[in-house]
Amino acid sequence: MTRLDVTEKIIATKVSKGLRWADVAKKVGQSKEWTTALCLGQMTATAAQAKVLGKIFGLTAEEQKWLMVVPSKGSLPTAVPTDPLIYRFYELVSVYGSTFKALIHEEFGDGIMSAIDFKMDLQREPDPHGDRVNIVMSGKFLPYKAF
Amino acid sequence: MTRLDVTEKIIATKVSKGLRWADVAKKVGQSKEWTTALCLGQMTATAAQAKVLGKIFGLTAEEQKWLMVVPSKGSLPTAVPTDPLIYRFYELVSVYGSTFKALIHEEFGDGIMSAIDFKMDLQREPDPHGDRVNIVMSGKFLPYKAF
Amino acid sequence: MTRLDVTEKIIATKVSKGLRWADVAKKVGQSKEWTTALCLGQMTATAAQAKVLGKIFGLTAEEQKWLMVVPSKGSLPTAVPTDPLIYRFYELVSVYGSTFKALIHEEFGDGIMSAIDFKMDLQREPDPHGDRVNIVMSGKFLPYKAF
Amino acid sequence: MTRLDVTEKIIATKVSKGLRWADVAKKVGQSKEWTTALCLGQMTATAAQAKVLGKIFGLTAEEQKWLMVVPSKGSLPTAVPTDPLIYRFYELVSVYGSTFKALIHEEFGDGIMSAIDFKMDLQREPDPHGDRVNIVMSGKFLPYKAF
Amino acid sequence: MTRLDVTEKIIATKVSKGLRWADVAKKVGQSKEWTTALCLGQMTATAAQAKVLGKIFGLTAEEQKWLMVVPSKGSLPTAVPTDPLIYRFYELVSVYGSTFKALIHEEFGDGIMSAIDFKMDLQREPDPHGDRVNIVMSGKFLPYKAF
Amino acid sequence: MTRLDVTEKIIATKVSKGLRWADVAKKVGQSKEWTTALCLGQMTATAAQAKVLGKIFGLTAEEQKWLMVVPSKGSLPTAVPTDPLIYRFYELVSVYGSTFKALIHEEFGDGIMSAIDFKMDLQREPDPHGDRVNIVMSGKFLPYKAF
Amino acid sequence: MTRLDVTEKIIATKVSKGLRWADVAKKVGQSKEWTTALCLGQMTATAAQAKVLGKIFGLTAEEQKWLMVVPSKGSLPTAVPTDPLIYRFYELVSVYGSTFKALIHEEFGDGIMSAIDFKMDLQREPDPHGDRVNIVMSGKFLPYKAF
Amino acid sequence: MTRLDVTEKIIATKVSKGLRWADVAKKVGQSKEWTTALCLGQMTATAAQAKVLGKIFGLTAEEQKWLMVVPSKGSLPTAVPTDPLIYRFYELVSVYGSTFKALIHEEFGDGIMSAIDFKMDLQREPDPHGDRVNIVMSGKFLPYKAF
Amino acid sequence: MTRLDVTEKIIATKVSKGLRWADVAKKVGQSKEWTTALCLGQMTATAAQAKVLGKIFGLTAEEQKWLMVVPSKGSLPTAVPTDPLIYRFYELVSVYGSTFKALIHEEFGDGIMSAIDFKMDLQREPDPHGDRVNIVMSGKFLPYKAF
Amino acid sequence: MTRLDVTEKIIATKVSKGLRWADVAKKVGQSKEWTTALCLGQMTATAAQAKVLGKIFGLTAEEQKWLMVVPSKGSLPTAVPTDPLIYRFYELVSVYGSTFKALIHEEFGDGIMSAIDFKMDLQREPDPHGDRVNIVMSGKFLPYKAF
Repeated sequence: MTRLDVTEKIIATKVSKGLRWADVAKKVGQSKEWTTALCLGQMTATAAQAKVLGKIFGLTAEEQKWLMVVPSKGSLPTAVPTDPLIYRFYELVSVYGSTFKALIHEEFGDGIMSAIDFKMDLQREPDPHGDRVNIVMSGKFLPYKAF
Repeated sequence: MTRLDVTEKIIATKVSKGLRWADVAKKVGQSKEWTTALCLGQMTATAAQAKVLGKIFGLTAEEQKWLMVVPSKGSLPTAVPTDPLIYRFYELVSVYGSTFKALIHEEFGDGIMSAIDFKMDLQREPDPHGDRVNIVMSGKFLPYKAF
Repeated sequence: MTRLDVTEKIIATKVSKGLRWADVAKKVGQSKEWTTALCLGQMTATAAQAKVLGKIFGLTAEEQKWLMVVPSKGSLPTAVPTDPLIYRFYELVSVYGSTFKALIHEEFGDGIMSAIDFKMDLQREPDPHGDRVNIVMSGKFLPYKAF
Repeated sequence: MTRLDVTEKIIATKVSKGLRWADVAKKVGQSKEWTTALCLGQMTATAAQAKVLGKIFGLTAEEQKWLMVVPSKGSLPTAVPTDPLIYRFYELVSVYGSTFKALIHEEFGDGIMSAIDFKMDLQREPDPHGDRVNIVMSGKFLPYKAF
Repeated sequence: MTRLDVTEKIIATKVSKGLRWADVAKKVGQSKEWTTALCLGQMTATAAQAKVLGKIFGLTAEEQKWLMVVPSKGSLPTAVPTDPLIYRFYELVSVYGSTFKALIHEEFGDGIMSAIDFKMDLQREPDPHGDRVNIVMSGKFLPYKAF
Repeated sequence: MTRLDVTEKIIATKVSKGLRWADVAKKVGQSKEWTTALCLGQMTATAAQAKVLGKIFGLTAEEQKWLMVVPSKGSLPTAVPTDPLIYRFYELVSVYGSTFKALIHEEFGDGIMSAIDFKMDLQREPDPHGDRVNIVMSGKFLPYKAF
Repeated sequence: MTRLDVTEKIIATKVSKGLRWADVAKKVGQSKEWTTALCLGQMTATAAQAKVLGKIFGLTAEEQKWLMVVPSKGSLPTAVPTDPLIYRFYELVSVYGSTFKALIHEEFGDGIMSAIDFKMDLQREPDPHGDRVNIVMSGKFLPYKAF
Repeated sequence: MTRLDVTEKIIATKVSKGLRWADVAKKVGQSKEWTTALCLGQMTATAAQAKVLGKIFGLTAEEQKWLMVVPSKGSLPTAVPTDPLIYRFYELVSVYGSTFKALIHEEFGDGIMSAIDFKMDLQREPDPHGDRVNIVMSGKFLPYKAF
Repeated sequence: MTRLDVTEKIIATKVSKGLRWADVAKKVGQSKEWTTALCLGQMTATAAQAKVLGKIFGLTAEEQKWLMVVPSKGSLPTAVPTDPLIYRFYELVSVYGSTFKALIHEEFGDGIMSAIDFKMDLQREPDPHGDRVNIVMSGKFLPYKAF
Repeated sequence: MTRLDVTEKIIATKVSKGLRWADVAKKVGQSKEWTTALCLGQMTATAAQAKVLGKIFGLTAEEQKWLMVVPSKGSLPTAVPTDPLIYRFYELVSVYGSTFKALIHEEFGDGIMSAIDFKMDLQREPDPHGDRVNIVMSGKFLPYKAF
């Protein structure tokens, strides 16, 4: 058994039971963004969280233990994503990546925006010209320092 | 002469004159995010915008014309970025890409978040544990429809 | 169970029963182009469409549910396709891609032809020198705008 | 001197003179699609066509000769295109490629749609929900035969 | 079941029964070159041919049907082949590819040698310095035309 | 100066003087296939051949010396060729490679067809359905032996 | 002018003047590790540091300004390094990467060792069986947290 | 059975029994770094070590034998690692690789740091600003010599 | 069943029985180098050799037949090997490849060292500074000739 | 100026002066194998060796200094070599790599053959069936040890 097996079981159960990530998240007591990433094999659960998920998805004790093991992260099968929704995010990095770099350095100096001390919030923004996806990302700035 | 030559001249002039993207944007009359992308060869200027940039960066009439030509977009030299700041955004797509996909489909159904009808805002968020980079992205949802 | 399992079952059933995509599409009530893409794991069915396909291909209730889940899109096993028929389309992008770009920008300005708000029609065009494949593609133009 | 030098001169002249591909095509006496592909280094000119282009773009006799040499085709710098407009066509091959294959084989049997005995027409289609890009492709079907 | 399963069964049966491709081809009534390609999953059989192969290799009715479905072509697991015999052909394309291009264009103008309307014959050529492999390839020339 | 410089000078001179490879070959006294490969930087000239080519293409003494140096072979800029004419040969290796392997091993046992002790002849074959490209390849069979 | 030009000038001057990185670092007042990375185009100088380097390497005022611009980082020309010394470090990541991951997670939980808040010290360790390279790395642990 | 099967069994048993690598190492009598690498399929056990591991992880006699076979090393599924923790080490090679090279050559001359005659020690370094990961690497310097 | 299955069975049996390649080779009556390559799926056995191997490794009649089929050669899972021992040979090609080329051409003219009409011998060379691996390779020189 | 410039000058001078590597090596006082690798930019010269080469190839004092700088090694432009002579060595690694690994481990245990403490000798071996290239490689065995 591997974490991948647990992930696949979670996804299959979600389809057959018709669950929603937002509802799962409420029971877990975390945001829908972090909880979905956890269920998709990218984050690590506490014992309490694993128990809740075990109940929702019918996981055995051993499967719950796998949720508490730090997983091998990276959720895409190819270096350049083929799925159109995910590709658009890759395209944003390709087109605006140098802009991100220029503006963050202008504001903060040399360093990076952390992808670890990071959180995000994804919302529907109603708009008469067609609703919009609204994503707020917040990552700690980590400066390079001379040593 | 190509658009790349104009981009390189703009960057070199910015370094030697010590300009800031935020100030350039104010003169152009657009956001700092879009203006930086324009200067870095990813967007297309109007005649008026090209004239303003021409004045700031000392561009010839022909160089200004190149700013008005739709460029070949994509600002990264490799498929997987090597620069640590830009890589972190790629990592976010890698780790959270399946989460983006799951949550957007749960909220909107099949479709994508547009990377064209898209805008963003990048701000410093003061934080006692270390300031944070705050990015708000907003893209129109585009649904797949049966035909 | 994954969507891929459902796709493989549909294809295997089609071979053993000798079905035609055009006939499947008529029963589904959509074009043969969209219906084939749905059956090949690229599109998302409504409950009614899933039921019709379930009947045609002998799918269980759970398999029908998978047809209603937004799939991970991308139907090719390699970045550059090896199958000669599919490669010819890739070659058209390679040879005529810069032409597509030049002419669409000349007519519409900066932006793209949507691959989401998109439809197509594929027909046999009789020709005394050998019949031709006729494909009409129609995609909404999406303009980049300054922000 | 190589064909690439001639292509770059043509593009630079087009920018500085503010020409349109559609007007160039009228003078050449061919479609705007084929003429643009020729100017972008993908097709081969006759002596008469080279002379017309020479006049429009101020090409020397030797540069005109290069237009008459069969070029090394392929207009994209990477196997997976990075420019968003061109990528959308690649995405269509990725998402609909297996559908193209299934429907062409259903209609014609084993074989391909030629990318050589091929023509296309690209038009703006007015639409109250936003104008559309309309592309009609026509390629001869070439059957595999047993030998 | 997929075409690949049928191909693997054919190969395994050939090994255990000690059959020769040349003998299989005689029973199928086509050349050994085309028949081998068919058995290796690259070509499409008629009902009669599938029946003959079914008898030789002990294929079920469903397996025979798969031989009549147009396969996904491309018989190599990597873009650059690793098997030394097959690599030598790739090397010929690498070393002599520009020569093929130069001479075919000199003789025929712009266009290609078809890989669809194509046949070949492979023979042993006795030679006192060591026998030679003799391959005759014949492909229809397909000209690009202006449109 | 490198061999590549000499190759580019030969090609540019051929375009400006309007020479034909077949005529060059006659003066060199070798086949048009080998001579073209030599001129395109894939083969090594004798002093006498270098002198003849020097006269035809106006090469200096040093440039002639480069023709006599064994070159770094491989005439394609990418592992998978993008030019449609050259790609078709790659496609033949992809589709028929396993067939080449099966039939050569059936006839000769384990070994390869040499790409070094190799020659070829390329001819136009008139055909009422459209002329054909006819290529005869002959390579010595080299057997693997146990040691 | 780009940062790369400045880097190349620094390296060329170092060769012609016979300088040592350790001596350069003493004048800059930072470790030899950080100073070398700065000179090789990976770090960002303060005005004072740029002035010191300008004196050592004979840099113009504009070249000094480039040292103060945050560079595009990544000092290797290929994804898998070819130089044997650098490859050995890549091999350590390949062979011991999963061990690094297992032990850091065992000690710290889910998170990473920062490559930004990072320093290192490289020393010669005398050893009778052959001197050793001794590298001490120290990076802050950054924990993933649920949000 | 392959070494991979044994590795997977060890990992699965560790999860279900809740073991720690540091404790396993104590029983094996080697460092936690080397022991973890052994358990993850990168090193070779002696008969005594295999027996100890067999007891801890419930391995059969045959599984223990596999631990004594030199494995195919390389513990990462992709050339550029996707897991954020492992990627940071790859990034260190990318950003500091040329610095490693410059400083080792300055101190030792031409040669490499061995990745075979190599050991390391990984410790938690308490720090009021957040604990740090401390890694000490020691590899024998191997000089290139003229021959 | 495929040749790969037979190879895996041979390797697994060797581990469980504790056999040595050198002893297997003596029974087969060939060198240990060729025999190991045969057992690892790279060479082709005669009926007599297959019978001997069948006895040693407990192979069925069908498995023995697979040893007599010419295999798909190439024993490495990635284009650049990850295993440190095998990588060192790849590194030798990378570092000394141009030297091999220069010296062989200097001695023999244009051509190659055959990898088919090839044999090798691998021995331990005792050395007070540490024993050495000694490999003697011998390949027939194959000259390119004009045709 | 870079080491590459010096390498290119050496090669160009060798062609124009008609020098032989074996003669250069004699003057340098090292083997022809090591000397050629040095001249091709893979090894590092002493001051005395650089002076000798400077005289032979007409190198300036600065160019001689570059010969004494440890170079970035790796002499091939692509990961899989395209030149047929060099490819054959890559093919040997591909076909016999697992054999090298099996036999070296059988004789020495876990470890590698050093590519640094390495020497080789390349000779012509006269043979009535065609002369052979004879290469003797000798590399120190480096054992992995537990720590």
